[in-house]
Amino acid sequence: VRARLGDHVYGADGEPLPAVVGGLLRSRRATLALAESLTGGLVGHLITEVPGASAYLLGAVVAYSDEAKTALLGVERHVLTYQGAVSEAAARQMAEGVRRAFGAEYGLSTTGIAGPGGGSEAKPVGTVHLALAGPEGTVSRHLLGSGDRHRVKLRAAWSALDLLRRALKD
Amino acid sequence: VRARLGDHVYGADGEPLPAVVGGLLRSRRATLALAESLTGGLVGHLITEVPGASAYLLGAVVAYSDEAKTALLGVERHVLTYQGAVSEAAARQMAEGVRRAFGAEYGLSTTGIAGPGGGSEAKPVGTVHLALAGPEGTVSRHLLGSGDRHRVKLRAAWSALDLLRRALKD
Repeated sequence: VRARLGDHVYGADGEPLPAVVGGLLRSRRATLALAESLTGGLVGHLITEVPGASAYLLGAVVAYSDEAKTALLGVERHVLTYQGAVSEAAARQMAEGVRRAFGAEYGLSTTGIAGPGGGSEAKPVGTVHLALAGPEGTVSRHLLGSGDRHRVKLRAAWSALDLLRRALKD
Repeated sequence: VRARLGDHVYGADGEPLPAVVGGLLRSRRATLALAESLTGGLVGHLITEVPGASAYLLGAVVAYSDEAKTALLGVERHVLTYQGAVSEAAARQMAEGVRRAFGAEYGLSTTGIAGPGGGSEAKPVGTVHLALAGPEGTVSRHLLGSGDRHRVKLRAAWSALDLLRRALKD
């Protein structure tokens, strides 16, 4: 992973976070699938910068439209209607749905509002929900940051990788 | 799109290629879906760096495993067996499959060998097949380049966007 993809995308010992996560998945012989909305493919791109990523990354669904979230990931229509595509419930269902669709040990999801448009008082630009579905259940994380579209996406991708790293480390 | 994501990712007039493609899709009220293997999400990431990309990008499937290529994109098993996941036939079926899965006007695919491992005499590292499925049929492109993993991915993503730009311009 090149420095130009985000200077802060590093784990412990200066090793890039995608390589740290890859090493943990590899040592556990675990597989991963991604459900990306906000990040649009950035998490998958970062993970596949690491040689040999095909040993653990099965694939991803980038579900930018609501239709894709329901049809490909099994997110329930009422969640999109009443809680919205950017919500903890949607993030959890995306992670669980992609884990099921790919038959992976772990499903990791990102949803949020990258801006500059689309924000509201309740969900301002920079609102991010992440979720990780695994053998022991599903955990989620809520971020609220500032910055431009690129930074919101990059922080979300980094945090998603970190959520996975912490789960694998335990 | 930041310069650090690849200084050569630019279209005419210095406008970033993802923005050029986005403008063309928008003016034609056309939608796009991506089937990424080699690029691992990079094409989707680049497209979603442009504000308002949700108006035309429905989503993507990153199909890194053969299983994902068959189950989610409808690539035929015999194509994977006899021509391989990195072949013109696989790229065409990926593009057509993702177009169908998302109900998009255009389906754009990438497959290839990023390296450093996985190359052979017949298909060296840097071998890339791209395809674009649209209302008028499917076109494909074969690239053979050199460079490290990051460069192979970046060139493939740029070429895929350029393939789409040319089709939309006609």
